[in-house]
Amino acid sequence: MVKFSEFANTLQSSDIAALLKLTEQPEVISFAGGLPAPELFPIEDLKKVDLAILEKEGRQAVQYGTTEGYKPLREEVAKRMKVKFGVESKADDIVITTGSQQALFILAQILVNRDEYILMESPSYMGAIMAFDPVFPKYTEVPTDDKGMIPEELDKILAANDKIRMIYVIPDFQNPTGITWPLERRKAFMEVIKKYDVVVVEDDPYGELRYDGENLPSLKSMDTQDKVVFLGTFSKILMPGLRLGWTIANPAIIDKFVKFKQAVDLGTSTFGQRQAAYYMQMCDVDAHVKEICALYGKRRSLMCDSMKKYFPAEVTYTYPEGGLFTWVTLPENIDAKAIMPKCLAQNVAYVPGGIFYPNGGHGNHFRLNYSNMPEDRIVEGIKRLGTVLKEEIAK
Amino acid sequence: MVKFSEFANTLQSSDIAALLKLTEQPEVISFAGGLPAPELFPIEDLKKVDLAILEKEGRQAVQYGTTEGYKPLREEVAKRMKVKFGVESKADDIVITTGSQQALFILAQILVNRDEYILMESPSYMGAIMAFDPVFPKYTEVPTDDKGMIPEELDKILAANDKIRMIYVIPDFQNPTGITWPLERRKAFMEVIKKYDVVVVEDDPYGELRYDGENLPSLKSMDTQDKVVFLGTFSKILMPGLRLGWTIANPAIIDKFVKFKQAVDLGTSTFGQRQAAYYMQMCDVDAHVKEICALYGKRRSLMCDSMKKYFPAEVTYTYPEGGLFTWVTLPENIDAKAIMPKCLAQNVAYVPGGIFYPNGGHGNHFRLNYSNMPEDRIVEGIKRLGTVLKEEIAK
Repeated sequence: MVKFSEFANTLQSSDIAALLKLTEQPEVISFAGGLPAPELFPIEDLKKVDLAILEKEGRQAVQYGTTEGYKPLREEVAKRMKVKFGVESKADDIVITTGSQQALFILAQILVNRDEYILMESPSYMGAIMAFDPVFPKYTEVPTDDKGMIPEELDKILAANDKIRMIYVIPDFQNPTGITWPLERRKAFMEVIKKYDVVVVEDDPYGELRYDGENLPSLKSMDTQDKVVFLGTFSKILMPGLRLGWTIANPAIIDKFVKFKQAVDLGTSTFGQRQAAYYMQMCDVDAHVKEICALYGKRRSLMCDSMKKYFPAEVTYTYPEGGLFTWVTLPENIDAKAIMPKCLAQNVAYVPGGIFYPNGGHGNHFRLNYSNMPEDRIVEGIKRLGTVLKEEIAK
Repeated sequence: MVKFSEFANTLQSSDIAALLKLTEQPEVISFAGGLPAPELFPIEDLKKVDLAILEKEGRQAVQYGTTEGYKPLREEVAKRMKVKFGVESKADDIVITTGSQQALFILAQILVNRDEYILMESPSYMGAIMAFDPVFPKYTEVPTDDKGMIPEELDKILAANDKIRMIYVIPDFQNPTGITWPLERRKAFMEVIKKYDVVVVEDDPYGELRYDGENLPSLKSMDTQDKVVFLGTFSKILMPGLRLGWTIANPAIIDKFVKFKQAVDLGTSTFGQRQAAYYMQMCDVDAHVKEICALYGKRRSLMCDSMKKYFPAEVTYTYPEGGLFTWVTLPENIDAKAIMPKCLAQNVAYVPGGIFYPNGGHGNHFRLNYSNMPEDRIVEGIKRLGTVLKEEIAK
């Protein structure tokens, strides 16, 4: 019998995991994942990029690299951060990570002790909760409305608790709700956090994927005290399989972050980092992102239009201006996890909303992804979901 | 002021790190790193491999993958493990990791609680110590001779302490000593661990890099109770920049390992995993390893011959049958760290031995790497080191 660590013993197989496993069968119209549309991955460009790397850099491209990452890639990220997110940074402020998942994991490890607090929107990204859990933090869900985290509530919570070490937020097209914080909300949030000694982690995987409305400044771009850590990723604008993200933070955090990352994996794939850097240098990222936005925007609209047509009136949902997800709210007496087997019997799937709340509850929600399904399956899937929901409500 | 976690506060900049930074300057003949020889990286093959991946698998090659890893790669690893290490395994027993560094990190996280014990050879790999440190373990260095860990001493330690959760060993061409455990030692070790409820982590990054003598069975191949976890890597037989390793363990450990890895980085680069899998399918790995062994074997012999010629008689060193390192022992009154600035002044460098002992001490050793320096620089570097050592001994 292997004796596992206290944390490993908390890693149990969940009924949700078992349900989600079922969504992977090809006959299922799955809105459960968060996958980009593979038909847009620029693999012809990738062929050119790979040859260029090996021609130009040869064997150095596959030797060990530095833990902080390939400098030309960090320079490309710094340039794009200025243009797209209004963030002033230089290569030394940036660490390349093995996906932004790794950044979430490391940040909790270096910033949070057991029983110290992490604040989050309510609900928030389940992958972040999973990344933070190993330090045994306590989670406080900050009351959140359709404009994001409520600054007055945040202020009260921060004033009452001196063990808060991190505020984790996704202001653009949040996962799971699809909500985007308006400008006023961002300003008010920054005014509140100015008063407290706390690190803000701004996770922005979808920031460039806006289909309607105006771009809004990132929190990091409004950060006069250098207390916001910005997380970006190539997974949604390029290809997720490369497992490449980036972290921008103040020098004290970068120093600890790099030392910790060295223990975790020494460094991220040196070849993979070059694939992203060369792609940014050789190809038209903006044109590629535009293509992504055109497709996802169409799917977003189609999904929302279909929900309007096929969902019963008692069911509400968000209309995201970008990103990958919409969030569905059922009447309070209907549990999304409980009715999931019925949906699976109709070969249609979502992620039950409860797992996005670190402290549980809120069973009457589910998350839908629209980026990864072709248009005809979106319509058909929403239609089937509508039928199940109507039956449940009629009960 | 950022408040860091208790562990992050232990991550200080060390004087060793500052010294090692100096070894990176191009004029320094550095025996300090552990880098493979880049001139052997098969990058012409890699071009073919990359094109084949994109032709054959297209966009799926850069989509998110499973946390346990790309199945055809795990199947290739299982095949090679049987032929090269006598280990029977199947794909489901194997997880692909972001370098074997990640495996070391995750194993400590899932197996060891704070103040529980990890046993190691004395000395042992500093990167493993770095990977284990975040769980705040206690380290017991098991007395080790020129044949590896001493089984009788291990038995006594295991009998006296019920908080030992992991025994970490490198039986082939150990880092840092270059020592290989003979067959009898391996058998005696396995007899001892049979009696105790403990996990053995067999780290074997260099197992295929043997220059003299006969291959010996891995501990995992002698493991009738499925309590050995085997760690392999593509860093030394293929290319380290891909950051690809593998872990073979019993189903209970694999289950926790995969769940933990999901929190750490969701999964390892799907494209990188295909690079290794296709390389193994399309190219002649055995011929490539043979080439590596020919070059490193020559450098090993040259370094040892040069030490014989230029080092004072009071200084001893190991003659490794494989791997990347030889281990030098100075008279007890000479501290390798203290004299390193003198060596650096002569533009020659090593890693002072003290950092390979988790509990400190043992300053009169250093580690030399011979894989990464051309032959003329090996001779010149050893000559310069010999001069410094003679001066120190004459004092």
